[in-house]
Amino acid sequence: MQVRLLRSTPEPELIIAAASRSTSADATATEIMDKLTPDYASRMIKHLISAGHLSPLEHASFTFSIEGISRACSHQLVRHRLASYSQQSQRYVHLKEPKFVTPSSFSANPEMRARYQEMVRKAHQFYQEMVKAGIPMEDARYILPGGAETNLVMTMNARELLHAAALRLCPRSQWEIIELFERIKAEVKRVAPTIGEELRPKCYKLTYCDEPKSCGLFPTLKEMAKAK
Amino acid sequence: MQVRLLRSTPEPELIIAAASRSTSADATATEIMDKLTPDYASRMIKHLISAGHLSPLEHASFTFSIEGISRACSHQLVRHRLASYSQQSQRYVHLKEPKFVTPSSFSANPEMRARYQEMVRKAHQFYQEMVKAGIPMEDARYILPGGAETNLVMTMNARELLHAAALRLCPRSQWEIIELFERIKAEVKRVAPTIGEELRPKCYKLTYCDEPKSCGLFPTLKEMAKAK
Amino acid sequence: MQVRLLRSTPEPELIIAAASRSTSADATATEIMDKLTPDYASRMIKHLISAGHLSPLEHASFTFSIEGISRACSHQLVRHRLASYSQQSQRYVHLKEPKFVTPSSFSANPEMRARYQEMVRKAHQFYQEMVKAGIPMEDARYILPGGAETNLVMTMNARELLHAAALRLCPRSQWEIIELFERIKAEVKRVAPTIGEELRPKCYKLTYCDEPKSCGLFPTLKEMAKAK
Amino acid sequence: MQVRLLRSTPEPELIIAAASRSTSADATATEIMDKLTPDYASRMIKHLISAGHLSPLEHASFTFSIEGISRACSHQLVRHRLASYSQQSQRYVHLKEPKFVTPSSFSANPEMRARYQEMVRKAHQFYQEMVKAGIPMEDARYILPGGAETNLVMTMNARELLHAAALRLCPRSQWEIIELFERIKAEVKRVAPTIGEELRPKCYKLTYCDEPKSCGLFPTLKEMAKAK
Repeated sequence: MQVRLLRSTPEPELIIAAASRSTSADATATEIMDKLTPDYASRMIKHLISAGHLSPLEHASFTFSIEGISRACSHQLVRHRLASYSQQSQRYVHLKEPKFVTPSSFSANPEMRARYQEMVRKAHQFYQEMVKAGIPMEDARYILPGGAETNLVMTMNARELLHAAALRLCPRSQWEIIELFERIKAEVKRVAPTIGEELRPKCYKLTYCDEPKSCGLFPTLKEMAKAK
Repeated sequence: MQVRLLRSTPEPELIIAAASRSTSADATATEIMDKLTPDYASRMIKHLISAGHLSPLEHASFTFSIEGISRACSHQLVRHRLASYSQQSQRYVHLKEPKFVTPSSFSANPEMRARYQEMVRKAHQFYQEMVKAGIPMEDARYILPGGAETNLVMTMNARELLHAAALRLCPRSQWEIIELFERIKAEVKRVAPTIGEELRPKCYKLTYCDEPKSCGLFPTLKEMAKAK
Repeated sequence: MQVRLLRSTPEPELIIAAASRSTSADATATEIMDKLTPDYASRMIKHLISAGHLSPLEHASFTFSIEGISRACSHQLVRHRLASYSQQSQRYVHLKEPKFVTPSSFSANPEMRARYQEMVRKAHQFYQEMVKAGIPMEDARYILPGGAETNLVMTMNARELLHAAALRLCPRSQWEIIELFERIKAEVKRVAPTIGEELRPKCYKLTYCDEPKSCGLFPTLKEMAKAK
Repeated sequence: MQVRLLRSTPEPELIIAAASRSTSADATATEIMDKLTPDYASRMIKHLISAGHLSPLEHASFTFSIEGISRACSHQLVRHRLASYSQQSQRYVHLKEPKFVTPSSFSANPEMRARYQEMVRKAHQFYQEMVKAGIPMEDARYILPGGAETNLVMTMNARELLHAAALRLCPRSQWEIIELFERIKAEVKRVAPTIGEELRPKCYKLTYCDEPKSCGLFPTLKEMAKAK
C-alpha cells in the first residue's frame, strides 16, 4: 500500500483560521488572511475541534493517490460519502499482473497463506484466459477476489478527514483501513501538522469508549460508572 | 436478484407537488396539500422534470431491499453518494452457502462457465476452511470473488433516483446494474407511476446522446450535425 | 410558528432496526422485517445511537411544513445541508399581509417593541408601494426585514435530525431555532417516540459541555478537572 | 460586491485530468501526473464535460472571499448544498456602518430609490439604538433589511461550480446572483481557464432552453418543433 498526497489547498491551516475568524469579525477574510500567523491558526484549529465548530475545516481539502489497497478495503472506503473518488475501473483496465493483498493474519498459518496465494494467482490466470477468449473484462472480473489490488484518487476536506479518521483509526476497525488512515495521517501532517495530529480515534473527543467493548485506550461509560 | 420496495413516503407524488406549489403560493403546504389531486400532482412532476426544477422531488424517498447482487455491482452502486445504504457485512456474517452471480455472457462459452462456477465454489470452500481454522472472517473474505452475492438496504429520494437511473439505464452501463435499475423502476412505478415512468436514460432529457458512441436511441451531436 | 409533520416513512423505527439487523445477518431485510417488534426496534435504536452507529437511521425520513418563522431563522436552518427544502419565494410570491416575528426580548422594552413593529409595518407598506409602481418583487423585497415571516417544507432523515437537534437544542443556540427544534421534536415523538426522545443537546452524548461556557446541564472538561 | 479567489487546488486542471486518466489506466495517478501537459488536461476536461463524466472535476476546489452581497442573495447562495460556507454572523458581529445593496432597478425611479435608502439607513440606526439599549444583537438584527450587506467565505469544487453556474448564469436567475457568478467565473478563469470558460448557462449543455420562456440564447423544444 502506498499513499501519496498529490495536492492540497495551499496553507490549509491558515485558510481555515481566516474563514473561521471572518464569521465573527467586522472585516473580510481577505483582510484577515494577511495578518494571521501559523501559530494563531494552529491554536484556532485546536479550539474549533475541541468546541465542535467544525464547518470552517471544510475549506481545506486534500487529494491522495491511494495505491495497492484491496477491493475489499476500497469498498469500505468509498462508503464515506462526503469525499470524491476516481477509482481504477475493472471494466476498462486489463489487469495484466496478479497483484493482491495478503492479510497478515495468514502469516500465523503458512499453509493457508500458501493456498490463498495460489488460489488468487489461479483466479487471475483464469481472468486472463477469459479476456483472451473474448469475455468482456467487466464480466471476467467477477472471478477476481476481494484481495485484488486497486488504485484510486481520493479528495477529502479536513472536516471529513477528522470524521473518517475518528472511525477508522479506532482499533475496532478493520486492519487494512486502519493502516490506510495511518498513512493518510502521516501525509496530512507534512502540510497541516495540527490537523494531522487531530486525526485520531473518536474516543479522544468523547473522553470514553462508546463501542460495546473498549480496546483499553478509554473506558466505556459502564466501566466508568463501576469504577466510582 | 430481487428488489423489493420496503417502504416509501406515503403518496409520494402528492407531497412533491404540494412542496413545489408552496414555493410560489401565499399559502402553507398544509393548506395546499388538502386540495391537490393525483392528476394535478402528476402534471406538476412532469413539468418540474422537463424544466429541470428538481429540488421538490427530494421530499419523497424510497427504501429498497436489494438481494442477491454481486459485490462487483454493489461496489458501483454505493458510489451514488446521495443515498443511504446498510449492506450485509462480510466482516460479521459467516456466509454458509456459496451464492454467486454468473454473468450471462458466460452462457456463450459453456466450458468457461463451468470453470467459473467450479472456481467460485472452491473459493467459498476455502473461505469456510479458513474460518474454521480460526482466521478472522474479515480476512478470510479476501478470497471471495467479485461475483459473490450480497444484500443491502438502500434509501434514495426521487431526485437522486432520476439522476442515478439516467446514468444506469443507459445501455453503455454495466448489465447487472442496468437490471438492478430496471427492477427499481418497476417497484417505483407501483407507488409513484409518473416518477417511475421518468426513470430513463439521460438522453431523453438531453434529446441527444452525449456518450462517444450512441446505442441508436438518440444520435450524438456529431451525427446530428452531419445529418443536416 | 407552526410545525406540522406532513409525511414520514411509515413505521420509521421498524425500518431502521430491520436495516441495521440486516447488516450482520445471513437473511434479507424483507425476512427480518416481518419478525421485528416495536419494542425490539426501540432498544436497537437506543443501542445504535449510544454506540455511534448512525447510518441505519438514514432510512427513515420526515417531511415538515414549517410556517411563520423569520427569514433570519430560515437562513440559519437551510445551512443544514443534509436535508431538502422548498421555501416560499420572495421573488414570486407577492406578500399581501405584513407578517413578522417579534423577538420576545423586545417585551422587556415596550417602547422598542412598538417602534420595531411600526418600522416593519412601514417597510411592508413601502414594499407594497414599490410592487405597485412596477418594481420587480425580487427587488422590492430588499426592504423587507430579517423578521419577515416565511414558510417552508423541510425533509430530514433521522440521522440528520439527531445531528441538527444536538446543535440547535443547545441553550447556546438562538431562541427562535431552539423553539423550532422543540416543535420538530414534539412532532417526531408522535410517530417515532424513541427517536423523538433522543433529539437533545450534544452534551448528552459527550457527557460534558464542549462550549466555552456551560449552561449548567453538563460541566465543561475544565470544570470536571477542577472538581477532582 | 467583491469576489476574490483566496486559495485553490494548485494546477487544478492537471489534477482533474490525472485523476480521470487513472481510472482507465494500468498506472497510478502519481505516475500519470508527471507526464501530463496543460494542453492535454484542457482537452480532457472539455471531453469530460461534454460526455457528462463529471466526477473527476470534484478533485479541484476553489475558495472565494465574497464581500458585500445582500443577505437576500446569500440566502439563495447557501442553498447550494455541495459547498462550504463561513458567513459573517449577525449574532456576533456588531455592524457599525449601514452597508446595503441598492437594486439597479431602483435607478429608473429616483424617488423610490431615495426612500429605500433612507428607510434602510433608519433601520440601521434603530438597530444601533437597540444594541445600545441592551437588546441582544441576534434580536436587534430582525429589523435589518434583506438588502443589508454580508461577507462570506465559500469553497466549491469544479463540478459543483459547473452545476451552480449552469443555473445562476441563466438570465432567468436573479440579477445579484448572476453578477456574483460572473465574478466567480472571472476568478476561476485566472487559474483554470478551461473550467472558467465552461461556467455558463445550462442551455449550452442541453442545446435548448428548458425554461418555460427562452431568453433567446437557445430556443425551447416547442419552438424547435414549430420551426421544423
